[in-house]
Amino acid sequence: MHTPGDVRVEDRADPEILEPTDAIIKLTATCICGSDLWPYRGIEPVDHTAMGHEYVGVVEQVGSAVTTVVPGDFVVGSFVISCNECEICRAGFQSKCVHAEFVAGGIGTQAEKARIPHADGTLVKTPGEPDPEIIPALLAASDVLGTGWFAAVAAEAGPGKTVAVVGDGAVGLMGVLAAKRLGAERIIAMSRHPERQELARYYGATDIVEERGEAGVAKIKELTGGLGAHSVIEAVGTQESFMQAVGATRGGGHLGYVGVNHDVQIPGIQLFFAGIHTLGGPAPVRRFLPELIQLIWDREIDPGKVFDLTLPLEQAAEGYQAMDERRATKVLLTV
Amino acid sequence: MHTPGDVRVEDRADPEILEPTDAIIKLTATCICGSDLWPYRGIEPVDHTAMGHEYVGVVEQVGSAVTTVVPGDFVVGSFVISCNECEICRAGFQSKCVHAEFVAGGIGTQAEKARIPHADGTLVKTPGEPDPEIIPALLAASDVLGTGWFAAVAAEAGPGKTVAVVGDGAVGLMGVLAAKRLGAERIIAMSRHPERQELARYYGATDIVEERGEAGVAKIKELTGGLGAHSVIEAVGTQESFMQAVGATRGGGHLGYVGVNHDVQIPGIQLFFAGIHTLGGPAPVRRFLPELIQLIWDREIDPGKVFDLTLPLEQAAEGYQAMDERRATKVLLTV
Repeated sequence: MHTPGDVRVEDRADPEILEPTDAIIKLTATCICGSDLWPYRGIEPVDHTAMGHEYVGVVEQVGSAVTTVVPGDFVVGSFVISCNECEICRAGFQSKCVHAEFVAGGIGTQAEKARIPHADGTLVKTPGEPDPEIIPALLAASDVLGTGWFAAVAAEAGPGKTVAVVGDGAVGLMGVLAAKRLGAERIIAMSRHPERQELARYYGATDIVEERGEAGVAKIKELTGGLGAHSVIEAVGTQESFMQAVGATRGGGHLGYVGVNHDVQIPGIQLFFAGIHTLGGPAPVRRFLPELIQLIWDREIDPGKVFDLTLPLEQAAEGYQAMDERRATKVLLTV
Repeated sequence: MHTPGDVRVEDRADPEILEPTDAIIKLTATCICGSDLWPYRGIEPVDHTAMGHEYVGVVEQVGSAVTTVVPGDFVVGSFVISCNECEICRAGFQSKCVHAEFVAGGIGTQAEKARIPHADGTLVKTPGEPDPEIIPALLAASDVLGTGWFAAVAAEAGPGKTVAVVGDGAVGLMGVLAAKRLGAERIIAMSRHPERQELARYYGATDIVEERGEAGVAKIKELTGGLGAHSVIEAVGTQESFMQAVGATRGGGHLGYVGVNHDVQIPGIQLFFAGIHTLGGPAPVRRFLPELIQLIWDREIDPGKVFDLTLPLEQAAEGYQAMDERRATKVLLTV
C-alpha cells in the first residue's frame, strides 16, 4: 500500500533465510483483514508498506535450526511471530512472546512468498495435504477464527452462558462460531446487516439485536433479566463499541475484546463500577491453532464461509475496495 | 461531613426498622477509610453527609424476615448491602447485587447505631463474642482487608507468582497480606514511606520499590526478567497509579484494581496492546467475610495492625485530619 487507498501488486525480491530459525513459505492463499482497512482509510499511517498477515502455504525452505516443519509441509501460521518456548508463550500468550513481531508491515503475506521467523514457534503443519475445499477455513484460522476464538475464550463463553457479540465483521462472526462450539446457551449477535445476520444465525446466533450504543445496552439488559450478558465479545474497536460492550456485561461477567482500539478512551470510573473481568488485545492465535486445524480437518467447523469474495492476488486493489465499501465481508486472495 | 474538611459529631435520630429484612446494629467500632478523604479534600461532592461504611457491632433489633442473625449476635458487615441470593450474588459479585446499596452516604456507620438493609445477605456473625484484641482485625475485614483480599484474588496471586502492589495505604497493605496468605512467591510493595515499607514487610513483602510511574514500571520489569509481574494490585485510583499497574503487569498477567478511580482515562490502545486480564471495582467483600472472620478468629492473620491511631467517635474530626495529613494510615473510632 503506497498511500491510503493506493494498493498495488508489484514485484519484490524473493525473501531469503536470514536466521537459522526462519522458514520461507510459498503462499497458497492469503486475505485482506478488517484491520487492513485502517491504513487504507488513512486512520493508521502507511507508506509503501508490504501488507497482509494471514497466510497458509507450503514450506519451501527452512533454516538450520528449524525442526518441526520441512519443505513440502502445508502450514498455517499466526499473525504474530512467536517462539512458543518463552515463559509468556508457555502461559498461552504467544502474541506477547518476548520475540513477538507482527507479520503485518514488516513481513507482509499478501505475496507469493514470505519469510517466517521463529518457524517452529509460529507455524503449525496440517495433518496432510489439505483438500482445496478447506483452504479458506485453514486461512481463517490464521487470524479471524483464532481471534474470534480467543475473544470467546477470554469472555468465558461456555455452557449456561449468554454471550453478546458486538461487531458483525469476520471476527465477530467467528466469535459467534466459537461461542457456539464452546457450548454457550444463548448467543446474541449485534448486527444491522441482513446478510451478516443470516451468517451469524448460520454460525449459531440465537438472537439478533440491531440497536447500538446505549440503546443496544438496554436491549441486552432487557434480554437478560436486567443483568446483562455473562460474556461479551467486542470485535470492532471504536469508543462506542467498546463502551457498548462494557455496558452489556453483567457485574462479575467477562468481556473479551479483540477489535483493534482506535482513539478509545475508557473512563476509569465507568470500568470500575462495572465490576467486570476483561481480557483482550492481539489474540494468541498460536495457542489455538493445533485445535482449530484439527476441527477444520475433521469438518467440525466451517469458518471458511466468512469469505464472500475470492480474487487472484493480482486483483488485491479491487478486494480492498470491495471491503472498504462493505460489498464484501472478507476477501480471499488466491496466489 | 457538612462540607469538605468540616467533620462534626452530632446527634441524629436513632435508626428504625423500615423493611422486614432490616437489622439495627449497635456499633462497637468503626473507622475512617482512605476513600473518605476524597470528599474531605473536596474531590467528591459532600453536603451534610452521614459518613462511614466500615462496621462491627452487636445486633440490637431485626425485622420479621431476618433469619440468620438475632439480637445479641456480634456481626461484621460489608460496605455494600447485598441480598446474597440473586444470580449476581451467587456468582460471588455481591457488590453488584441487584439490591446493592452503598453504606457510605445513605446509611453512614461513623455512628452509634445503624440500620442495615438485607441483614441476612449483608451481615456475617462471628463464632461467638470476640476478644477485644481482635476487634480491629474484624473491623478491617469490613472493607480494607476484604478489598485487599479481593484485589489479590482478582490479580490471581498464588504459588509461584510474583505480585506487585501499587499503593501503600491500608488497602495496599492488606493486598500484601492477602497475596502472602494466598501463597505468592514474591511480593513487591511499591512505597516510599519508611513506616509503611516496614508494615508491608511485616505482612509479607519481599521487595520494596520506591520508584513511581514509568520508572516504577521499569523497576518491576528489571526485577522480573523483563517480563513484568504475574499479578498486580492497584490500590490508589489515580491516572499515574492505574497506568503504572497496567505497565507492571506481564502479557497474559492479571491486574486487580480496587483504588476508587478519580479522573482516570485509560487509553484503549495501551490496554489493548498490554494483553492483560483485569478485574476490579468495589470489592464483593461479602464473598470473603466468612473465611476472613475465621482466619482472624483463629489468629491466622492480623490485619488489625493497619490501624495506627485509635480515637473515640467524638474525636472523628481529629481522625480525618490525621489521615489527611498522613500522620495516620488508618484511624479506628471506638463507639
